[in-house]
Amino acid sequence: MADELSEPVQALAQRFSSGDIRALARAISLVEKRDPSVRALEQALKDRAQAYVVGFTGAPGTGKSTLVDALVALLRKLDRSVAVMATDPNSPFSGGAILGDRIRMQRHALDPKGFIRSMGARGHLGGLSLAARQTIRLLGAFGFDPVILETVGVGQSELEVAAVADTTIVVLTPNLGDGVQMIKAGILEIADIFVVNKADLEGSNRAVTELRGMLSLSNVPGTHKVWKPPIIATSAARQEGIDKLWEAVLAHRRQLESTGRDRDLARQRLQDETAEVAAEIARDRVRRALAEDPTLAERLVADGTPYGTAEEILDRKR
Amino acid sequence: MADELSEPVQALAQRFSSGDIRALARAISLVEKRDPSVRALEQALKDRAQAYVVGFTGAPGTGKSTLVDALVALLRKLDRSVAVMATDPNSPFSGGAILGDRIRMQRHALDPKGFIRSMGARGHLGGLSLAARQTIRLLGAFGFDPVILETVGVGQSELEVAAVADTTIVVLTPNLGDGVQMIKAGILEIADIFVVNKADLEGSNRAVTELRGMLSLSNVPGTHKVWKPPIIATSAARQEGIDKLWEAVLAHRRQLESTGRDRDLARQRLQDETAEVAAEIARDRVRRALAEDPTLAERLVADGTPYGTAEEILDRKR
Repeated sequence: MADELSEPVQALAQRFSSGDIRALARAISLVEKRDPSVRALEQALKDRAQAYVVGFTGAPGTGKSTLVDALVALLRKLDRSVAVMATDPNSPFSGGAILGDRIRMQRHALDPKGFIRSMGARGHLGGLSLAARQTIRLLGAFGFDPVILETVGVGQSELEVAAVADTTIVVLTPNLGDGVQMIKAGILEIADIFVVNKADLEGSNRAVTELRGMLSLSNVPGTHKVWKPPIIATSAARQEGIDKLWEAVLAHRRQLESTGRDRDLARQRLQDETAEVAAEIARDRVRRALAEDPTLAERLVADGTPYGTAEEILDRKR
Repeated sequence: MADELSEPVQALAQRFSSGDIRALARAISLVEKRDPSVRALEQALKDRAQAYVVGFTGAPGTGKSTLVDALVALLRKLDRSVAVMATDPNSPFSGGAILGDRIRMQRHALDPKGFIRSMGARGHLGGLSLAARQTIRLLGAFGFDPVILETVGVGQSELEVAAVADTTIVVLTPNLGDGVQMIKAGILEIADIFVVNKADLEGSNRAVTELRGMLSLSNVPGTHKVWKPPIIATSAARQEGIDKLWEAVLAHRRQLESTGRDRDLARQRLQDETAEVAAEIARDRVRRALAEDPTLAERLVADGTPYGTAEEILDRKR
């Protein structure tokens, strides 16, 4: 199977490496389809650059998308290649992402150095899917820098962004809501940069002051944390504060690089991805084994022993 | 390791089988902690009954918890042993579940045949966690019938409930919201029973009629679906319609049993659980291998090859 595919995958990898954006799109669609040739593609593309990932998170309605759009516009003015990976949690009760993305596509679609991809956020178990993680890595390998990851802030997606991003930006509005909720949710801990967006709204200064107060309270002396998350006031709609936000990202990146923490984060991402790839392979092996071996499937039902069955399948010789 | 633990696990299994509720609580906490003795416990408890699972889903604010509470009260009056497994998605921006559960605990806590457990819904990747699935199975093995699974309706949790429940109940309010969203989200397809809760509110009849219209539109002739999901109007706060809801559950259960579909569902649940157990084992093996073998970890970073590394680790002899 891998041999049959190795020729086209090699050709694809070559086009990818030469900067053909259609090869990138094709590679991403292979990843999305969980095509078996992804493994060969990975081999062919090894040693390519890794993405610097800037993650945006925050509750719905904080204006994350507009903010990301404004940042992309700034980066394109600075002639940087930037890719946006927007995740759509596919919520039954919110469906705005598709229209939002269409509007944004029109704005950046004709720009070869700006790339926007929308993808279901959730693996079959939820969470930032393996496909999303691999796409982020493909975007970096293609040469985009930075890769922006934008998620809809529901459930635990905040924490998932932080696990994947080098710089995590938490977007709030002047109406901060219940500060206790944020502390409880661990939002204060994951932010490398806070944005108080919609700074033209009333209460913006108060929100910044309140947030600063919460941060100083949670600032336990003697921690090893050397980076103090700045609070940036922006108005994405008016394009205000976007340059300050980008400066803060660069400052954080320099700090990560000077301490070697950027390599730790990249390593952690690869290890997490490897664990998820292994989980995917294991699930596939179990499903295939149970489909091909009715006796085994019957025994599982009769005994009710998922652990025993899973170990038996994984430990088979191959 | 398994040998060391086999003695206490055997004792635990014995207490569990004799109906000691503390043994159930202990077993659940082992499952939650992902304790290695879960494997031996599974072996000791094999052949026990499997739960009939009634799943409740719906958007926040539809009154699911009050409805589940009212159903539990009814079932206890009928002297049925009922367990509720409530999942808390641990959302940063909603924190009502804990207080809600405390109030409910007070009401049912002293009842030995009513059992309520609250558990984080999300595995480390989101989704209905393996621990939640295993707990549902433990509750069934202990003898609770039915086991009620209540989830907070955000993201894809609706679809996750349907994957685990025998009877899936979708709870709506008279203010149905955008019907198109529901159709898009596949909500119409997963429901075995619809509840229009808060039937005392204005617009309740219109909502039932609208929903019936949507259902008949989506009712493609010639499909193999023999069950026509009924629409039950309830007022959980006033305890109205709860008996009708329970009758509908029993009717659906009889239909599943008469067609053998209940066995298919139980089989599917066990197969899904086996796949997730295998995924967990695979993740553990990768993390351990990378922690114990710095050369392998370095090569992963240098090459950027999660697939190759994952396969290499899984295919090692053991």
